[in-house]
Amino acid sequence: MSLPENFAENTLEKTNARLTKLFANRTGRMRASEIRELLKLLDQPDIISFAGGIPDPAYFPREAFAEAMTKALSEQAAAVALQYSTSEGYTPLRDWIVGYMARHGVTCSRDNILITAGSQQALDYLGKIFLNAGDTALVTWPTYMGALGAFNAYEPRYDRIDPQTNRPTEDVLADAKAAGGEVKFAYLSTDFANPTGVTLTEDQRRTVLSRAEALNCAVIEDAAYQELRYRGDAIKPILALEIEEKGDIDACRTIYLGSFSKTLAPGLRVGWAVAAKSVISQMVLTKQAADLQTATINQIAVSEVANGVFEDHVAKLREVYGVRLDAMLAALERHMPEGVEWTRPDGGMFVWVTLPRGMDGAELLKEALKANVAFVPGGAFYADGSNRNTLRLNFSMSAAAKIEEGIARLGDVIRTQM
Amino acid sequence: MSLPENFAENTLEKTNARLTKLFANRTGRMRASEIRELLKLLDQPDIISFAGGIPDPAYFPREAFAEAMTKALSEQAAAVALQYSTSEGYTPLRDWIVGYMARHGVTCSRDNILITAGSQQALDYLGKIFLNAGDTALVTWPTYMGALGAFNAYEPRYDRIDPQTNRPTEDVLADAKAAGGEVKFAYLSTDFANPTGVTLTEDQRRTVLSRAEALNCAVIEDAAYQELRYRGDAIKPILALEIEEKGDIDACRTIYLGSFSKTLAPGLRVGWAVAAKSVISQMVLTKQAADLQTATINQIAVSEVANGVFEDHVAKLREVYGVRLDAMLAALERHMPEGVEWTRPDGGMFVWVTLPRGMDGAELLKEALKANVAFVPGGAFYADGSNRNTLRLNFSMSAAAKIEEGIARLGDVIRTQM
Repeated sequence: MSLPENFAENTLEKTNARLTKLFANRTGRMRASEIRELLKLLDQPDIISFAGGIPDPAYFPREAFAEAMTKALSEQAAAVALQYSTSEGYTPLRDWIVGYMARHGVTCSRDNILITAGSQQALDYLGKIFLNAGDTALVTWPTYMGALGAFNAYEPRYDRIDPQTNRPTEDVLADAKAAGGEVKFAYLSTDFANPTGVTLTEDQRRTVLSRAEALNCAVIEDAAYQELRYRGDAIKPILALEIEEKGDIDACRTIYLGSFSKTLAPGLRVGWAVAAKSVISQMVLTKQAADLQTATINQIAVSEVANGVFEDHVAKLREVYGVRLDAMLAALERHMPEGVEWTRPDGGMFVWVTLPRGMDGAELLKEALKANVAFVPGGAFYADGSNRNTLRLNFSMSAAAKIEEGIARLGDVIRTQM
Repeated sequence: MSLPENFAENTLEKTNARLTKLFANRTGRMRASEIRELLKLLDQPDIISFAGGIPDPAYFPREAFAEAMTKALSEQAAAVALQYSTSEGYTPLRDWIVGYMARHGVTCSRDNILITAGSQQALDYLGKIFLNAGDTALVTWPTYMGALGAFNAYEPRYDRIDPQTNRPTEDVLADAKAAGGEVKFAYLSTDFANPTGVTLTEDQRRTVLSRAEALNCAVIEDAAYQELRYRGDAIKPILALEIEEKGDIDACRTIYLGSFSKTLAPGLRVGWAVAAKSVISQMVLTKQAADLQTATINQIAVSEVANGVFEDHVAKLREVYGVRLDAMLAALERHMPEGVEWTRPDGGMFVWVTLPRGMDGAELLKEALKANVAFVPGGAFYADGSNRNTLRLNFSMSAAAKIEEGIARLGDVIRTQM
């Protein structure tokens, strides 16, 4: 067969266009995560990066995982560890989580728990389960951008749920109806939220719950950072408060999402959802159809490590990251010009900075990179792209001296731009 | 707060109903997999089960995985293995797959490959990317029921693509349009298909491709069982045939899905998709939003084991499973009454049995269980639930003597029921 010289190229363009024309409507809402694209560019050693949102690998419980994997792959155990397993998840891990949740005031049974491949996967499944196109998802302003990414595939509209704002229930419901759907859930991060670092007080949690009651929607409680508290007392999860009120998790509308990514290690992709059986059984069906199960060996290893070193390991993380948070807050105090504001978290991995109005985080980043310091512009964390005069700083990846140096550089850049 | 005695129960019922009422329309299409539910009941030691579809754990490359995990969790490597990584997948594993695909006639680059958490996940993502509600997915009759499960969440209708049947393109297109959508893809398993064990000839593969051209739809080629060939020569994947025709993978409409579940081990959940960059980049976006990435350490371990022992290990599997296939075909010949037909696969894990018309596989299973032998009734593999006089037999999990005994029992049960 003899082809014209530019045949392949022409065909390529045509076929690509043909194939992408076949894509479903929802793909129009699926865009690359600015953060993940940005992080690819930040590998140069000169840059002090506050852009990441990842745990410091120097503090992974490496030895515990090495032991757990060796055990899981021993002659007695490997036939199970390498084989298919149930969609619900590895029973001993679900049982460990029952105990963990009880320590946080959540009384539940194994059947209230699904193991997911990280809590990101639970967000995808909950979008799939609840959202028809045009339904309303309530989120905070700003919110975890990965949640917007997961939900976007199911074509919702967004409205605001902030304990601070107090929009009348009727207005929220009317707007949802006018858009052709219903309010399906409110999504919030309760402790040391990504990106703000802010924690909801117990009162605010109760407010969220009573608003959800009034709106008759579910509550998705993202507790990914819950364990990383460096000062102050733990506050009960929304799910615990709701169980106190209703007496039974199966009567609750709150869906709690936990993760081992911030406490043990993210590279194994193990998280979990806790909720009423009616929700969990639909999530199990969803998982069965979507990826069958979370990797068997990963669940076994996490179960082993959680049973062995969870409390001790998290205590060490709190110590290390707590020092870094303090270093960042002190450096901000020292180096930020007047007119710049920031949150003062009690834990987590992030501090949220608000620049004077009119400044733009994305524009600032270009200048900051010239000064070898990086962060994530805040606009991407708003469902409507507003509030571009914000930025997210991560402190979990840098030692105190580096934080001091980086914030000094950032302060200079901001001062020049003001 | 004093509550009436039955408060919790009443609230439970009410809230469950309230929450499930919030579920999206698509959940009406998501049902439990009969097979997975069935398999839970089959743990009794007396039963000879041909119901599974899983590899024999006695032949997992346990030692290779133990070594790979130890290496991945060494002091030098663990910071990478336990950390977040890119949505596209681990580069050395994608590079191994480039070489593997080349050996099967598929010339591609790393950017044409996405690592997925098993190939089931690719089916979910492709449903998400291509299907609006009411669109048409073409499948074989019967087809892998997990594909129907994955696609159902996106509310397609199904039509038939069988190389044997020859429905005019215009009719298929007209029906799709009448249903309010478009024909988006044809899904097929090319080698030793689950459930039939049947392999498409090269001619049939070309026919599928030319029909897809005429219908202007994508082709999803499920190659999960491709390596498990026990006799005869390998046939080129549809994607390889299309590349021969068009000169460039980026001009192709075929999306090839591979899996390590049948060759190395399913418990790690590692598979891959190979396609034009336009499709892979949309799949990467989908993965980023749905679960961020496949577990880092699993990809590293699979890469290590694939580089080390893939060919030798698969050669051993072929020997073991080939004996079992022969045992099953010989036993069927000996024990099946006249009027019963079955496929004669060259590989894979399954033989497909057709009972005389009017018999029902599900009814037969009840009787078979009394005689301590199990299989999967065939109706669930048909998008329309038709052809209930069929059943799927798995031979990968039982040694030859057990197969002989189990098929003898099954023959007796069928004879009694005829």
